[in-house]
Amino acid sequence: MSKKYVVLGAGMVGSAIARDLASDADSVVQVVDVSAAALKSLEADDIETMQADLMAPAKIREAIAGAAVAVNAVPGFMGFATLREVILAGVDVVDIAFMPEDTLVLNELAQDKNVTALVDFGVAPGLSHVLSGHAAAQLAQPDKLFIAVGGLPRKRSWPWEYKAPFSPVDVLEEYTRPARLVEHGREVERPALSELERIDLPGVGTLEAFNTDGLRTLLHTLDIPFMKEKTLRYPGYVEKLLVLRDTGLLSQERVKVGDLLVSPFALTAQLLMDAWKLGPEEEEFTVMRVEVSGRTADGHCRTYTYDLYDEFDPTTSTSSMARTTGFPAAIATRMLAEGQFEKHGVVPPEILGQDQRAFEALMEGLTARNISITTTVETSQVRR
Amino acid sequence: MSKKYVVLGAGMVGSAIARDLASDADSVVQVVDVSAAALKSLEADDIETMQADLMAPAKIREAIAGAAVAVNAVPGFMGFATLREVILAGVDVVDIAFMPEDTLVLNELAQDKNVTALVDFGVAPGLSHVLSGHAAAQLAQPDKLFIAVGGLPRKRSWPWEYKAPFSPVDVLEEYTRPARLVEHGREVERPALSELERIDLPGVGTLEAFNTDGLRTLLHTLDIPFMKEKTLRYPGYVEKLLVLRDTGLLSQERVKVGDLLVSPFALTAQLLMDAWKLGPEEEEFTVMRVEVSGRTADGHCRTYTYDLYDEFDPTTSTSSMARTTGFPAAIATRMLAEGQFEKHGVVPPEILGQDQRAFEALMEGLTARNISITTTVETSQVRR
Repeated sequence: MSKKYVVLGAGMVGSAIARDLASDADSVVQVVDVSAAALKSLEADDIETMQADLMAPAKIREAIAGAAVAVNAVPGFMGFATLREVILAGVDVVDIAFMPEDTLVLNELAQDKNVTALVDFGVAPGLSHVLSGHAAAQLAQPDKLFIAVGGLPRKRSWPWEYKAPFSPVDVLEEYTRPARLVEHGREVERPALSELERIDLPGVGTLEAFNTDGLRTLLHTLDIPFMKEKTLRYPGYVEKLLVLRDTGLLSQERVKVGDLLVSPFALTAQLLMDAWKLGPEEEEFTVMRVEVSGRTADGHCRTYTYDLYDEFDPTTSTSSMARTTGFPAAIATRMLAEGQFEKHGVVPPEILGQDQRAFEALMEGLTARNISITTTVETSQVRR
Repeated sequence: MSKKYVVLGAGMVGSAIARDLASDADSVVQVVDVSAAALKSLEADDIETMQADLMAPAKIREAIAGAAVAVNAVPGFMGFATLREVILAGVDVVDIAFMPEDTLVLNELAQDKNVTALVDFGVAPGLSHVLSGHAAAQLAQPDKLFIAVGGLPRKRSWPWEYKAPFSPVDVLEEYTRPARLVEHGREVERPALSELERIDLPGVGTLEAFNTDGLRTLLHTLDIPFMKEKTLRYPGYVEKLLVLRDTGLLSQERVKVGDLLVSPFALTAQLLMDAWKLGPEEEEFTVMRVEVSGRTADGHCRTYTYDLYDEFDPTTSTSSMARTTGFPAAIATRMLAEGQFEKHGVVPPEILGQDQRAFEALMEGLTARNISITTTVETSQVRR
């Protein structure tokens, strides 16, 4: 029997997910977006399209009627309302909207509705959390979790050496929001852009890493006394941002300029939209390291290190950001449709990562899509 | 007989000039400004004050009536009109308004009126040009002129390590206007902030130097085949400015931000007004090097190097910028009043520097005010 998948949102990642799902012989894929232009390019790929404004709850219900699984790929600001509506309709859902709200508050509703809602299911959050949960489950006593992740252009153009796949407003907000991390088992806040360090990563060379607020659900789901997440950029990036910040150019407090009251943040974001624009065929890559250490059941120290490296795919013109964010979601969508993962409620990726069968299915799917993750396990005996 | 000096403008430099002139037993000093607050602090120093808006030509004429010499210390944008009015009134004048216009176009008028108008008579332009003219006059064939100058805070605060004694708008305009210099005897233009180099200066350490448009009258008055002027800042300054520039934050082209059309330049200047504000008792210093090389009459290669270094004066709370800009003007004002320099017309400082008697009087005056200039002369014999 053919399965119907409904992808809400035809952005870069939503489109990649839809194309991936449409490659199954027995699937029917429908993509919904308010923009006819965004839908246009999908029609050639044997994908059904529906033009609708998903700000209207009735349109969401109409769109997902009959779906085996829905994918929530709308912009972050409308993510929560959309997710809630899909859960209310009793449809399983994979979410990559990366909304600012805490999705776990919808857990009870999802359980009541017998719905599985896999949230934050991209690359980071997403794969990062799957790997974290998987490694932590192997350890009797996990001590430390470190995630470092970045998407970067191949060609480095001064001054920023960076291209944003999302709106600079969202990126800049990541750089101004304090980062929550865990130290000695307690949640602490550090300023954005703090604790800058240099990291050498295989195949990439030296990057810089700084605190961002990327742990999200991990703050509540895993009991590990030290946890932090950092963003990776080419060296020198943070210093340039700090020049802007310390000059006042990232401030949201309006400033009088002649007769106008202007938000420096809004102007800077507007200018960075040009400076950070990713060209349509511009080569970029994604690099991520997840490191989890702790004690094994027999008392040894063990560290699991996962290194992901992925590049722009020139044959399909798919960005690495779309691949690494979209493919985990696409694979998980099939898993839900085929009953390979059946936990009801709002389920963050680290919980799926603790399920050995689901973890293996996800890794196989990524390998099939040429997303390679290198796993290194180091164990040292501890003298008693 | 007592001499009357009229200082137009009661800013930081105008005030320093007025106080210096008022220290003579036989002088009457009157300062004119539109701001009662600016005038207030001068009244204690036995200085006559007149509150008037010098945008009105009649007010200028009224203010300078009976003056032996006037000092033009108004803001740059009203400098030219004020200078012209003083010359029309037949009053000798020393000018430190640093107007954007070419003052030499008033030369004929000044000659007709038998007026001496010493223009650009601060530190740079000013002393820089006096020293250039003086050295060039010692050489049979001057080949090369190099001026490097900067005013810097003693305390270096990241990111800018700089405080502006003037409006950031004027400072930023210096950094966006192409620099005119002379190469192989021809005037050429270079981009602002270009040809960055590092220079070690006595007592200061390493600074960076970059092209600015500071040659002004020298482009027309001295026949030297290679001439350039650079601004000195702490290392790293230009890179930070280039981050702003290459992000579009120094552009005067308005950008749409929400419903507003905003000039990034205006916003950045507004924010830098805070970041670059010099504290009232904040220690700063002025450093300048002038280097002139060429052939002597007997065929040797000779280089004249002048190094100026001056600091904030804590006893009088006078900034070094006010000292080095104001004292040359005050000394020159007396020279005109006492008939020590009698060339009619618009006279740039390099022409005064070629006059040995005037040069010596100026240097003596600076020494008396504890502004030290170290002169180094290197001569190498050339084999024929």
